[in-house]
Parts: sequence; structure tokens; C-alpha cells
Amino acid sequence: MTIKAINARNQFEGTVKHIKRGDVVSEVVVEIGNDKLITSIVSTSSIDDLKLKPGSAVIALFKSTEVALASFQPA
Amino acid sequence: MTIKAINARNQFEGTVKHIKRGDVVSEVVVEIGNDKLITSIVSTSSIDDLKLKPGSAVIALFKSTEVALASFQPA
Amino acid sequence: MTIKAINARNQFEGTVKHIKRGDVVSEVVVEIGNDKLITSIVSTSSIDDLKLKPGSAVIALFKSTEVALASFQPA
Amino acid sequence: MTIKAINARNQFEGTVKHIKRGDVVSEVVVEIGNDKLITSIVSTSSIDDLKLKPGSAVIALFKSTEVALASFQPA
Amino acid sequence: MTIKAINARNQFEGTVKHIKRGDVVSEVVVEIGNDKLITSIVSTSSIDDLKLKPGSAVIALFKSTEVALASFQPA
Amino acid sequence: MTIKAINARNQFEGTVKHIKRGDVVSEVVVEIGNDKLITSIVSTSSIDDLKLKPGSAVIALFKSTEVALASFQPA
Repeated sequence: MTIKAINARNQFEGTVKHIKRGDVVSEVVVEIGNDKLITSIVSTSSIDDLKLKPGSAVIALFKSTEVALASFQPA
Repeated sequence: MTIKAINARNQFEGTVKHIKRGDVVSEVVVEIGNDKLITSIVSTSSIDDLKLKPGSAVIALFKSTEVALASFQPA
Repeated sequence: MTIKAINARNQFEGTVKHIKRGDVVSEVVVEIGNDKLITSIVSTSSIDDLKLKPGSAVIALFKSTEVALASFQPA
Repeated sequence: MTIKAINARNQFEGTVKHIKRGDVVSEVVVEIGNDKLITSIVSTSSIDDLKLKPGSAVIALFKSTEVALASFQPA
Repeated sequence: MTIKAINARNQFEGTVKHIKRGDVVSEVVVEIGNDKLITSIVSTSSIDDLKLKPGSAVIALFKSTEVALASFQPA
Repeated sequence: MTIKAINARNQFEGTVKHIKRGDVVSEVVVEIGNDKLITSIVSTSSIDDLKLKPGSAVIALFKSTEVALASFQPA
């Protein structure tokens, strides 16, 4: 089975930069280009299933309903 | 009251590009640089509170626990 | 680009049974076998991108961190 | 106080199959029938409050807004 | 079937103050005492299933993983 | 940069009461007044970035889409 497309509007291709392994969940930092980073917390068993390690090509994805917006005052 | 810092590791400054207004929730597309877009669905009343319109400066933010990871086969 | 695998532990193959279209978000009911249903709310633009309609084959997926547990008293 | 009904459209009765205990969060695998499994990550203190152990009857529940949809190519 | 307890650590009893009905999702404002309000967006079909209207007694609940923290500068 | 306002409708000022530190994620209990508590699970690195400790002033915030509603039978 191959996933063709997923509805999450927010999908960023990147490279795993760093993994902080925990007992149940782990933190994965993904570089998505132009020095931008996305951090993901996933189950440690997923890390193993996907065989993720620094340098692995991944897509970081999240649903639009999860994104909050803030207005700000530029410094 | 001024928020100094928020724990969400994923915070991207950008500009509102487009708003699709709905009765209860609205879809906001934010340009975060280098042609990258983040889409957010927020309540329509928030759009009004924050006075968001195309061109508004915003931060799109989301928690690390919301980010899924996929491995892929480059085309 | 083809997604090979995604970290979400919870992935259910099914068939779209019903779509209730809204202005910004839509509700999609997916039959995953044995009369079990999963309901998903996604952006209406995703429905169009994925060309979803009743009968479409889909995978419903969600992260483990989103699942709550309740104990109960069988009737 | 007894909860009569909850709005989450997605509620699956099942049995705890396995618990992987962590320092702050734990992973609980729930069998919902027909060899289908749902994995949940909850706080370890919840595990203790609900006295969950393999064999416990539970309901796994999640909101529709958390469910993403993917289209796929059957193998 | 009666739910005895749910793992969500964050559960607030309150009274529905206002419902803004939408085509697919609706916004429900819940008063939890001491002039504190919690806003929930749920599917409109859930509103009907639970027969919610202003004055209804409800519990607003959410998982700990959904809560972000910010530090602030008191005014 | 200073955040002026954030769209999350649910924002509660409070004081950190307790932190249970884990390897990757930590649990923070926040007292929001009138003996009400909100529990948040955030990455342990966020705890350090925000220099959170018991007594710290924080805002607990979450999106409306994350809040479920239950009807109940008062005891």
C-alpha cells in the first residue's frame, strides 16, 4: 500500500537534524530549509519503525486546526 | 499584559496571504518566507478580535505533539 | 513524491460513507469495517484536492497523543 | 458525578492489551475487536488514577478534528 | 453504558452560556464559575446529539498534551 | 519581538504549582484561581527555555477545537 496524498495542508519536506530519545516519546528536530526548524514529538516506537536517524529525509505534517495565530509587535 | 514567550517550539513569523471566512471557523493562509505557506483554521471571532486581514503580520504556532512524521521516496 | 510510511500509529483503511460539506470545513464519515465508523473534520479545500466522494478509499489517521481513555461500566 | 455522553464522535470500546510505562507519559495499546488496535499516549498519572492494566475495559476516544485523511493506492 | 472516569486531567463542570451554530461545526461558550469561560468548537451534529442549549450542564474537557504555556509580563 | 495577542480563545493566567520532569516531556500543574488546576504536558526543553519553576506566573492556553464536551448526571 502506498499513500498517494494526505489531507493535511501543512506538509514540509526536511531532514532529521537531531533526535532526543525518551522512554515512551522522543523529540525529533527537522530542518526544512532556510534554517527553519520544526520540532515533533512522536512515540519512540515510531522512531524505530520509520528507522529515523539524523540525516533521514522526512515530511513533517500537521493539521490546520492545530495551528494558532498570534499578532505581534516587531522589535 | 504582554506575552513574553510561549512554549510552543514551532513558531513562524509570516504575513497573512488569504482568509476564507466561514460562519464559525475561517481558514487563514500565512506566507512564512521562501514561498512556504502554513494554513491555520481558527474561529471566525478570533479573526475579528485580532483584526486579521491580508497583509497582517502574524506568528503561526503549534505544539510539537501535533506534528506527525512521514518517510518518503523522493520522486 | 510518494509517502512510504507515516509515524501515526493509528491508521485505518476504509471507505467514505458520507460527506457533509461546509463552507470552510467538512465532515467525512469513514466506514472501517465491521460497522465501525470514524468521523473526520477536514478543510473543504482538502476534500476537493483529494477528490473525496462517497465510495472513495481512504486512510483515517490520528496521533496517539490525541486519544483519550475512559473507564466504563458495561450496561 | 457520572458522565452520560460525550461529544467525541469517535468512541471505541476495547480492552487494554499492553502498557508501556514512562516517567511522565505512557503508551497504552487498546484492542477494539477484529484485531484492530488503537494506541493512546496519556499521562502516567492517569494510568494510575484509572487503575489501567492489561485486560481493563476502556473506551478510546478522540475528536473528529484530530483525524486526517489520506488517499492511497491499494497494493 | 456509563462512563465512570476519563483520563483527561482537565475537566471543568459548567453551564452552556451561548451557542453559535454553524453548518458543520458550532462554537459553544461554557461558563465554569467565577466568570471564567471555556470555548469549545464541536461538530454541529454533536450539539444535536447531546441536546445542548444555553443553560445545559456540561463538562468541558481537554488533554494535557493540548495545553501550551506562555510566560508573561504582568501589566 | 513581543506577542500582543494570540487567537486561542482559552487563556488562563495562573501560577505553576508543580512540575514533574521527564526525559523528553514534563507535566506542569498550573493553579488558575479558586482551586482550579490545569495540567499541561510540554517538552522538557521548553521548561528550561521558559525557566519555569513552582511559583512562576504563566498563561495556560489551548485552542477551542481541542475541547470536548460531555453531558453529565449531577451526583
